[in-house]
Amino acid sequence: MESQNVDRPVHCIVKLGGAAITMKNSFETLNEEDLLLTSKHLREAIMAAPSCKTPLLDCADATEEIGEGGLEPACRAAFIVVHGAGSFGHFQASSSGVNKGGLRRALVTAGFVATRVSVTKLNHIVVRALAAEGIPAVGISPFAAGWSTSKKSLDRDNVTEVRRACNVGLLPVLHGDAVLDSQQGCSILSGDVIIRRLAEAFQPNYVVFLTNVSGVFDRPPTEANAVLLNEIVVDESGDWIVVKPKLESSVTTAASNHDTTGGMATKISEAASIARLGINVYIVKAGTRDALQALMGNVRDTSTKHWVGTIVRSAYREL
Amino acid sequence: MESQNVDRPVHCIVKLGGAAITMKNSFETLNEEDLLLTSKHLREAIMAAPSCKTPLLDCADATEEIGEGGLEPACRAAFIVVHGAGSFGHFQASSSGVNKGGLRRALVTAGFVATRVSVTKLNHIVVRALAAEGIPAVGISPFAAGWSTSKKSLDRDNVTEVRRACNVGLLPVLHGDAVLDSQQGCSILSGDVIIRRLAEAFQPNYVVFLTNVSGVFDRPPTEANAVLLNEIVVDESGDWIVVKPKLESSVTTAASNHDTTGGMATKISEAASIARLGINVYIVKAGTRDALQALMGNVRDTSTKHWVGTIVRSAYREL
Repeated sequence: MESQNVDRPVHCIVKLGGAAITMKNSFETLNEEDLLLTSKHLREAIMAAPSCKTPLLDCADATEEIGEGGLEPACRAAFIVVHGAGSFGHFQASSSGVNKGGLRRALVTAGFVATRVSVTKLNHIVVRALAAEGIPAVGISPFAAGWSTSKKSLDRDNVTEVRRACNVGLLPVLHGDAVLDSQQGCSILSGDVIIRRLAEAFQPNYVVFLTNVSGVFDRPPTEANAVLLNEIVVDESGDWIVVKPKLESSVTTAASNHDTTGGMATKISEAASIARLGINVYIVKAGTRDALQALMGNVRDTSTKHWVGTIVRSAYREL
Repeated sequence: MESQNVDRPVHCIVKLGGAAITMKNSFETLNEEDLLLTSKHLREAIMAAPSCKTPLLDCADATEEIGEGGLEPACRAAFIVVHGAGSFGHFQASSSGVNKGGLRRALVTAGFVATRVSVTKLNHIVVRALAAEGIPAVGISPFAAGWSTSKKSLDRDNVTEVRRACNVGLLPVLHGDAVLDSQQGCSILSGDVIIRRLAEAFQPNYVVFLTNVSGVFDRPPTEANAVLLNEIVVDESGDWIVVKPKLESSVTTAASNHDTTGGMATKISEAASIARLGINVYIVKAGTRDALQALMGNVRDTSTKHWVGTIVRSAYREL
């Protein structure tokens, strides 16, 4: 806020997948190891991020006081984190049908409240984990910030508060949340919808999806012969094609079949909706060396020839 | 949101004093007993609140599904809770001088982040405690909702999100928070400032301050001969006079002396700033029968002849 007329550029938006930071199938259970590793990777990536010319923070002054374990210099380009719910909130939401709306019904209201208690618990844990690594993380709950839907589609956002936080050197941490819906009373706003809106608003240099598998495969990774898709190119219309490896059309067809691909088509379409904006998306396994490289934007240079993950890029933008 | 054109009236705004729900002098320690009792009292008060005519929720439908332990019928007039920080956030904020601002300095940024981690932790605990009693509580962090200050004075609020939550039958829970400041970078927004703004915006029937002593005394309650002030009358200018008990002027003078009264003058002026709006304020010890009576607005009827607490009322409004 020291100089509201200059916006600090956003370098990278990170999606912390619910499946990566929680044990998706056991109630409100954290994947502490991956959360810790991811926090350390984020710190490293923030430290390596390009400096930005915004006069918001005095680097000299800041770095002088930082030192080991201190906070990251906010004179670097900003990062934004959005995490999913995983095993936090998911059960409460689905059992009460929050996404179907109807706050007239006590059961739905109970589910709405229980879902928020659970997802905000996870948000608090994530913010604390990042802060413990010296990252100036601040939680911004979409419901509290006024994000809402209309017939389940994003209706009102609050990009302004995220920008204000970035501009003073803070790292906003948003999350999938139960929100109000102008048509059906309430609904679930997914982290993916939030990421897409933020990517559109901030035009980051790249977006990273941290997940619990090595990237996107042509079929469930558990299946024999599952092939990791290295590079997918997306055009303006959102249509995409796998350019590496070269696949037989049959496999490509399978890739667009929701039922047989373990949701990989959904993953691709989420990434494609961002890549079509001209922003590259790196999908990679959380807590790995490849995740760190992705967070640093190094998915191509020689030192990372063997980078393992999926690049979903715009047909109009090279890496 | 089912009918945005009708605003649900706000019956009562409750301040949960930091000294009442936490052990003020031991780091991040809860006063579990008082929080539990207060949650039960709030549930009882909400159930007894007058019905409002807003068609927002179908009472028949709602009550049918509620039953013991279920959620409160949202067809009743709304309650709003604002809690202080007590031993959560206070230490982090004061040690780093967050209220003095200067996010250019890493120490202040660290303090800002640590303060928010601590106060949001308490907010989560309070929301969970209320929800456990079947109250549809939702946390609304002022920072996330966009409340901010300018030279430490409230600059931007977000009453809209609080109203939206009330309108769909939820009970918003706000708290004192570290916020951005357009002049000095950051500052502390106290729960009292938030309460005053909400009282102004919602014109509740009354406001209750739940604290850790029986009310406001003419000197520190620990002192011998400390006299509980039963009734204080406030005029439009905010000037106040103790009408019960009748005090010798000397004592009244003492009452306005910040140094010798254990902050009671501050307490009175906070309450007076609300009472001057024509809204009565009841200051009472949390967890007591008197607190329950205050939350129900019964500080005068015969059944509560012996109500113990301090009434700060407008000269232009009877009880």
